[in-house]
Amino acid sequence: MAAMPEINAERLLKDINHLAQIGAGADGAIYRIAGNDADMAARDWIDKTMRVSGLHSYYDATGNVFARRLNTPGPWLLIGSHSDTVPAAGHLDGAYGVIAAMEVLRTLHELDHPMADHLESVAWFDEEGVMEGSGGGLTGSTALTQNPHAEDLFAYIELHVEQGPRMERDGLDLAPVTGIVGVRRYSVTAQGQANHAGTTPFDMRQDAGRVASRVAAELKNICQEADPASIGNAGVISFDPAAANVVPGAARVELEIRAGKNEALDAIERALTDFLSLVANEEECTAKLECTSAKPAAVFDERVYGMVEEVCRRRTDKCAPLLSYAGHDASVISTRLPTAMLFVPSTGGFSHSNREHTADGHLVLGAQALLDAVVRTGELMLPRLLSNELVAA
Amino acid sequence: MAAMPEINAERLLKDINHLAQIGAGADGAIYRIAGNDADMAARDWIDKTMRVSGLHSYYDATGNVFARRLNTPGPWLLIGSHSDTVPAAGHLDGAYGVIAAMEVLRTLHELDHPMADHLESVAWFDEEGVMEGSGGGLTGSTALTQNPHAEDLFAYIELHVEQGPRMERDGLDLAPVTGIVGVRRYSVTAQGQANHAGTTPFDMRQDAGRVASRVAAELKNICQEADPASIGNAGVISFDPAAANVVPGAARVELEIRAGKNEALDAIERALTDFLSLVANEEECTAKLECTSAKPAAVFDERVYGMVEEVCRRRTDKCAPLLSYAGHDASVISTRLPTAMLFVPSTGGFSHSNREHTADGHLVLGAQALLDAVVRTGELMLPRLLSNELVAA
Repeated sequence: MAAMPEINAERLLKDINHLAQIGAGADGAIYRIAGNDADMAARDWIDKTMRVSGLHSYYDATGNVFARRLNTPGPWLLIGSHSDTVPAAGHLDGAYGVIAAMEVLRTLHELDHPMADHLESVAWFDEEGVMEGSGGGLTGSTALTQNPHAEDLFAYIELHVEQGPRMERDGLDLAPVTGIVGVRRYSVTAQGQANHAGTTPFDMRQDAGRVASRVAAELKNICQEADPASIGNAGVISFDPAAANVVPGAARVELEIRAGKNEALDAIERALTDFLSLVANEEECTAKLECTSAKPAAVFDERVYGMVEEVCRRRTDKCAPLLSYAGHDASVISTRLPTAMLFVPSTGGFSHSNREHTADGHLVLGAQALLDAVVRTGELMLPRLLSNELVAA
Repeated sequence: MAAMPEINAERLLKDINHLAQIGAGADGAIYRIAGNDADMAARDWIDKTMRVSGLHSYYDATGNVFARRLNTPGPWLLIGSHSDTVPAAGHLDGAYGVIAAMEVLRTLHELDHPMADHLESVAWFDEEGVMEGSGGGLTGSTALTQNPHAEDLFAYIELHVEQGPRMERDGLDLAPVTGIVGVRRYSVTAQGQANHAGTTPFDMRQDAGRVASRVAAELKNICQEADPASIGNAGVISFDPAAANVVPGAARVELEIRAGKNEALDAIERALTDFLSLVANEEECTAKLECTSAKPAAVFDERVYGMVEEVCRRRTDKCAPLLSYAGHDASVISTRLPTAMLFVPSTGGFSHSNREHTADGHLVLGAQALLDAVVRTGELMLPRLLSNELVAA
């Protein structure tokens, strides 16, 4: 393999800082909600920056901003992330992957590298789903999966900050991402009989509050037994009536589970159903487990993942595969295109917060690994695609 | 022992039904909040009824309504209960004990029984503590304990409906009451760190919600291990922030414990403190157990309790001692006078509800047992009191 081109680290960091000013509040946090003035200014800046670099930049009908070389026939490898944020966000979630993709494309373009003709960058619209009327986010990437342009693309690679503490804990510099957890949310409701907490003996109660507490307390064990890599959270709980001296007659818990495979989510759901049924029976209540939303797990393409892993290992031995516990545009795109991701560490694991931070060294390393992955993927996947095209022609 | 005088069962039931009309809402429930028009009308009716019966009826400065024979020198045995209600109450809580006391006094008065000169009935003001400005209820009985009139009284016996399901479950007709549980309320607060429920692994969380759920779920075991006759209730719980995908950073539980002895309450509190400390440590949170109110347990006077038990057993073999899990005026009075109580069953255990009900047969039996207890207590306690008085004179 020939020596890899090197990204322009100075320009990368300057551009990250520039984008961080667009939509920044007095608190230093970013307010670039999809569709607001700051979000539109950010996408215009991306568009203009790529044009100034001599590239063909364009908006699609959804509001995604794409850039590639002028007059290239494709197929293209797509790289990028999203430019919108949650309210009071950090400056790296999404933005880092967008700027890195811009940097990789510009570097290869400036060097007139063979992959420059087969690379497109994207800034996805409305990943976060905070915008009024958003159907849960991932708007721009979902639109692409139904757009004919997807046929001109042969793979997707997304670079992102981890948004969690695992890499820092394990001392990792880079992590090829094996897939994205599926997420299921549930509403647990229990119905018993409200009663005087003094005069009703334990064995004559129908205490819906105990059903809710026991399920919330057991969730961790249920997840860990079904799949040690899975996680769960009981985030909301309430009793009704809510009084210290009244046995709760009704109770509610909202919880979610995340796992890397849909089979694991199924197993957790079964165990949860069984436990709820057991507890409701013991507490002489009725109870219901209702799935309120379900996002399937994404297992990334073996070939593209393999190339990302290979280039990461070449850059650092502080590298290990990771499952993504947060959702990403890559999850949607993986239903349409061979897809993979790579992560750099998040200091302290903070995200969706102005405490979000990644060391400059890691930001540069991640963008360089993205370039490496682009070149390697081109080397391995393009020849066959181009010869097929010749055959077809 | 001579044959006991018999109460006027017809008058008893008629008066219970009459008082049930005062403050009745369209839903059939009673709204006789201390100090409202219905409560004042009820006490005026009690006052008038006793006057019409030829008795000396009077209000004290607090609003308690007392009645006794005219021109008797005392000492007096006090019997009664409270005439106020919670909102949407049943017609027996308090009212039954008041009417029964009126009936017993009138019966003995009409028969010119020797105990008629040494008996006083009372309708306590504001037991329930619903009245605006009430310091938690028991207002009238608490005032009496600081009133010189208490010096003229030699014992207190209160008849009440059980307000719980134990007697019905065990097939009991009458229950002499050994004492009243002490009640302690606690606020449990846990402080952790709110975090992304997807990206934060279980072993890196400080999940305050788990602390709260685990304490709520464990309370029953803690109570039962410390004292099988104790009970507890986790009635209120909340997580903050409350979102399915956010690890709770703070959480709160309000709970209460009830036991017949203060030592048992102490033991439960210690076990609760230990468990909370263990759980907070395991979940890497800080937690605090704060006692927000404490009512000590009342253990009734052995002699008066013994006489109540004796007369109950003479009336029925479906009779067993019971601990009261609800608070009563007798609890306060027991700090000043030798005190005991007796219960009749509550159908279905309902109370503070328009479903409150006790069979007529049990209402009559209870009032008769109260008369029996009055006569027996007089026989056993009065001679010494009167001879002491002679000695003192």
